[in-house]
Amino acid sequence: MFFSSDNAESWAPEILDALARAADGPMPSYGDDALTADVNAKFNALFEREVAAFLVPTGTAANSLAFATLCPPYGAIFAHEAAHVMVDECNAPEFFTGGARMVPLSGEGGKIAPDRLTHALGYYMEGLVHHAQPHVLSVTQATEYGMVYTPDEVAALAKVAKGRNMAVHMDGARFANALAHLGCSPAEVTWKAGVDVMSFGATKNGCLAAEAVIFFNPEQAKTFPYLRKRAGHLFSKHRVLAAQMRAYLTDGLWLRLAKHANDQAARLGTELAKIDGVRLWYPVQANEVCPSFPGDVAAKLFQAGASFHPWVLPGDPSQGRMCRLVTSFKTRDEDVDAFVAATRKFCGA
Amino acid sequence: MFFSSDNAESWAPEILDALARAADGPMPSYGDDALTADVNAKFNALFEREVAAFLVPTGTAANSLAFATLCPPYGAIFAHEAAHVMVDECNAPEFFTGGARMVPLSGEGGKIAPDRLTHALGYYMEGLVHHAQPHVLSVTQATEYGMVYTPDEVAALAKVAKGRNMAVHMDGARFANALAHLGCSPAEVTWKAGVDVMSFGATKNGCLAAEAVIFFNPEQAKTFPYLRKRAGHLFSKHRVLAAQMRAYLTDGLWLRLAKHANDQAARLGTELAKIDGVRLWYPVQANEVCPSFPGDVAAKLFQAGASFHPWVLPGDPSQGRMCRLVTSFKTRDEDVDAFVAATRKFCGA
Amino acid sequence: MFFSSDNAESWAPEILDALARAADGPMPSYGDDALTADVNAKFNALFEREVAAFLVPTGTAANSLAFATLCPPYGAIFAHEAAHVMVDECNAPEFFTGGARMVPLSGEGGKIAPDRLTHALGYYMEGLVHHAQPHVLSVTQATEYGMVYTPDEVAALAKVAKGRNMAVHMDGARFANALAHLGCSPAEVTWKAGVDVMSFGATKNGCLAAEAVIFFNPEQAKTFPYLRKRAGHLFSKHRVLAAQMRAYLTDGLWLRLAKHANDQAARLGTELAKIDGVRLWYPVQANEVCPSFPGDVAAKLFQAGASFHPWVLPGDPSQGRMCRLVTSFKTRDEDVDAFVAATRKFCGA
Amino acid sequence: MFFSSDNAESWAPEILDALARAADGPMPSYGDDALTADVNAKFNALFEREVAAFLVPTGTAANSLAFATLCPPYGAIFAHEAAHVMVDECNAPEFFTGGARMVPLSGEGGKIAPDRLTHALGYYMEGLVHHAQPHVLSVTQATEYGMVYTPDEVAALAKVAKGRNMAVHMDGARFANALAHLGCSPAEVTWKAGVDVMSFGATKNGCLAAEAVIFFNPEQAKTFPYLRKRAGHLFSKHRVLAAQMRAYLTDGLWLRLAKHANDQAARLGTELAKIDGVRLWYPVQANEVCPSFPGDVAAKLFQAGASFHPWVLPGDPSQGRMCRLVTSFKTRDEDVDAFVAATRKFCGA
Repeated sequence: MFFSSDNAESWAPEILDALARAADGPMPSYGDDALTADVNAKFNALFEREVAAFLVPTGTAANSLAFATLCPPYGAIFAHEAAHVMVDECNAPEFFTGGARMVPLSGEGGKIAPDRLTHALGYYMEGLVHHAQPHVLSVTQATEYGMVYTPDEVAALAKVAKGRNMAVHMDGARFANALAHLGCSPAEVTWKAGVDVMSFGATKNGCLAAEAVIFFNPEQAKTFPYLRKRAGHLFSKHRVLAAQMRAYLTDGLWLRLAKHANDQAARLGTELAKIDGVRLWYPVQANEVCPSFPGDVAAKLFQAGASFHPWVLPGDPSQGRMCRLVTSFKTRDEDVDAFVAATRKFCGA
Repeated sequence: MFFSSDNAESWAPEILDALARAADGPMPSYGDDALTADVNAKFNALFEREVAAFLVPTGTAANSLAFATLCPPYGAIFAHEAAHVMVDECNAPEFFTGGARMVPLSGEGGKIAPDRLTHALGYYMEGLVHHAQPHVLSVTQATEYGMVYTPDEVAALAKVAKGRNMAVHMDGARFANALAHLGCSPAEVTWKAGVDVMSFGATKNGCLAAEAVIFFNPEQAKTFPYLRKRAGHLFSKHRVLAAQMRAYLTDGLWLRLAKHANDQAARLGTELAKIDGVRLWYPVQANEVCPSFPGDVAAKLFQAGASFHPWVLPGDPSQGRMCRLVTSFKTRDEDVDAFVAATRKFCGA
Repeated sequence: MFFSSDNAESWAPEILDALARAADGPMPSYGDDALTADVNAKFNALFEREVAAFLVPTGTAANSLAFATLCPPYGAIFAHEAAHVMVDECNAPEFFTGGARMVPLSGEGGKIAPDRLTHALGYYMEGLVHHAQPHVLSVTQATEYGMVYTPDEVAALAKVAKGRNMAVHMDGARFANALAHLGCSPAEVTWKAGVDVMSFGATKNGCLAAEAVIFFNPEQAKTFPYLRKRAGHLFSKHRVLAAQMRAYLTDGLWLRLAKHANDQAARLGTELAKIDGVRLWYPVQANEVCPSFPGDVAAKLFQAGASFHPWVLPGDPSQGRMCRLVTSFKTRDEDVDAFVAATRKFCGA
Repeated sequence: MFFSSDNAESWAPEILDALARAADGPMPSYGDDALTADVNAKFNALFEREVAAFLVPTGTAANSLAFATLCPPYGAIFAHEAAHVMVDECNAPEFFTGGARMVPLSGEGGKIAPDRLTHALGYYMEGLVHHAQPHVLSVTQATEYGMVYTPDEVAALAKVAKGRNMAVHMDGARFANALAHLGCSPAEVTWKAGVDVMSFGATKNGCLAAEAVIFFNPEQAKTFPYLRKRAGHLFSKHRVLAAQMRAYLTDGLWLRLAKHANDQAARLGTELAKIDGVRLWYPVQANEVCPSFPGDVAAKLFQAGASFHPWVLPGDPSQGRMCRLVTSFKTRDEDVDAFVAATRKFCGA
């Protein structure tokens, strides 16, 4: 009954196999190798345009390096108050940007509504030297609570951002899960909807440690290589990252893994919702399920060996305690079944 | 009818005289002069304890250098969402601290309520490496809206902060105005109430450019001299700052100047409140008056030559447009009278 | 016999008078005032072109803000190993640039020779992501040892720098002294010789605290206003800086003050050079005299009340102890005479 | 004939096997797993004391995070002018420390001599606010040129550093090669010789991407976890790093791999030295060989398919062109033989 996080799982066999195959002989270091070139080509194809792609080992690195490329130290970055970049990266955005301001926005299910953004931007006057200058909007796809922006929703936010000449960043740590839900093309929900740069996650969904930063306008990426290097995120044995990402993008592996996680989350959500006293805070779209449990049920579940996180909601935690369960590319049927059964039992259902 | 800001006024004659007297002959540079020693002694006397005082030319420098001394780059600084450090210093806190997080708190009249602070701190888990670690609470005395914390109110906030081992900073850009309102001793509303470090403003209240950072526990100040120097805020002709501050602290000049500003604000507030359709958002305690005007009255006042700022309230600007008028050590009776008369006329009173 | 530094003197009466005249009534704050506009016009005239000029209170701020505008965090700044920016600003260049590399260059009398620069640049490969990328050359005019670059010498260095697309910065903390020596126009030794940005000093030469950063290509200055604000160097009562600089630039005051300092240095140097056992390390061009004294003469001079600095030469201090004496706009004949007489006496001449 | 770098090789089979074995089931993320605990225990045993060990993916991250833990932004870090931290990390030290100064020292073979350090420290006055304050000495073991410090040599440098209360850092990117040469215990050439913190490299010597930062005094490591997280270097699937390092430290694998590389370098050096016209700049101690080749021999070797780097020597490149060849844990006999034979042929020997 392991639902604490998708990053506590290991990796898909296809990924490790790729590393085994990549071990053959010397290769140019620092990314000048054929595997990396192949990854770049795959990203071009995936996004139906020439992109600039850069590999790094962690999502925090991907997000922060993207910000550092897009935002000057006197700039402001707007994101949801519950976003990973806002609460779970220990000031990495400020560090990498040299001190940009992080502006928190509220919104249901981890999603920013366009009018919230418009409202917030009203406090930041363009060209007024006293105010941080808005430079980046970051949207999380899927959100921390497993909600997924549609292409239209992304476009609506991007429109507001572009009205202030801001770049749009997508934190796609769980982009695969979002896309498996949406069923659209990667292009449709990114650059076609106004996204300039994205963090394309792979670690949570079956890799060991591999993320890509994708610039849909390669010209915007000019400083990125230097920023990555001076942050210690340029791998000397770059094939370590490239081999993983190449396998991840091959034969639809990434979407297949994500679909498994989403399906398990959907099943888990559906079954939990049937139990009296259990409330689902948000519809299950990606691989997160956000229930609250009555009375001491959560405590009993922990005692029974279940693993998941009680959640502190930004904004207002007073309405009962939401929990978050995360499924993964590896979640087994029996874990879902066991969790549902235990919850039923403790709820007296 | 000049009420746009106290920093748009010039300076008191006593301050310029002090500069004239300080021009006699060479002195050790960088603060090793007798004038500076005298300022230190005056601060010790004023605060009834041994303090470490440092002079800088601007309030932004004072606040940010205080933060940099108290807060590591992975720390978080909590302040009111309307505080100068939060909205009007173009990310100076992030710059000086090397990237600390600024956490905005709401609260009436620019004042933070202790439960808001407690609530916000709940999202920052101690020792959890993913979260910014709370290190500083900054309270603005008087607030941007001219409200003044009582010693008990400061103590209540400090108690919450100390419960998390946070330092308490007071942004006293208008400390003189606050104290002139409170009538207590400087010690009572600062270190006796739990303040560790303060920015002691003088520029807005009659100096040319002079602020002090006061450490009530001199041991906490060890890194300050280096941080000040590398920020370009150590004056070579340090007497320029010391002569101003010395005169400011001599014979109660600082409180005399502040009392004048406060009295003019009180009179302005009292008269405006009598006019039908004018609403005062907050009681007038320091040298700010925050009215909203009906219909096109504000526009007419501008046309008539009045100078003041419409205000964008953080949180919710939808309840009509608040304006802010600021009086100063130099505000003349006739300006107050003229403004009141004009408002009356435009309101049809 | 006060020769420790020009920044230990006070200020010229014309400067204080200007402050007294500037005290009349409210003015727009933060530089939107008529005095500041007048300073800008004066700089345009002085440099015979449209420049972007910004006022700050200290030389460290001027230099570092110039660097921050010109150099990304992954850039390198080349300067003489004895330059103020290199040894006397407590890492301010690194702080303001967000971590650029400072590369020290050797050279006689504080002057960089073009081949030293070329040689050093050879270690920094363009576009190689592992290497700091050369972005700025900073030349000090006059140098720490009172040497003055001719326009041709500046041009020769600028040519090397431009060959690597680097910007050229001039630290003109003592620009007035350099110009008083050269007798050329300000334009000739700055932008006409390839300088892009300069720190135009006034503090050491008769102001209280006032420096200007001059961008000869105003387009390069776009980020400067934000960087200045977030560093706490934008004065609210901006007229404090503007009034000083305006007076300094009026009726040739700045050159008149510098000429006095230079003349006293020349006389001091000439007389000292006549004394057996005293060695002048460099020709006296600006307001510095760099002698070494035989035996215990330096110690005796200190005992007799003389004030000056023994110097630690970067590169090689083994050749005897150089001292540095600095004259100022206020140095009196009798001080020079007394120092020379005392030296003569202690040297047994 | 591949001798360009040890980081262009892949990885040892034992390391990949360990990753394969680590894939079994969910584990706590971010380092709270049993594999990581085991690595910590192994480091304690290896260094014969309780240490604090942290895993990161790259050497630049290891070095810079160590610096950031030891050095304030106003501090100075002293290292050899040819050290990786000085020339090959694109200002990472400045970035991570928030702007500390990097001070280059010269010295034969990449080794710092104690008197060079003493001399350089003479320019940095303790407690003088204008000067960067010395905080860290970084020694590279083995050096960029394959020279190895003996325990006594490390101790002599550490003594100078400790005399100024500086911490001593060892960049051990090639520590295994150094130790394989020395034959002493890891403790003898690190903390017993005065080293406080080290970067313990594994990537170049057979891992995919894994380095450890070792604090010999765990108390000094208190801020490290936050600094690592905010730099994006805390792996969520931390076992990825731990499994590698655990295998690397098991059954002497690390020294076995290093010994192979050293032996090949020794053989290569010995054979090259016999060829007329070839000069070895330094004795071969670790896995680097630094020859210069006569005439166009280097060019011919490149044409023949050999891979190695011509080197730009800091200090003085005028004495002919040194090249650097690096062997690795995987270097084959036939590559050494072929290179020697080709050199012989092109030298006409």
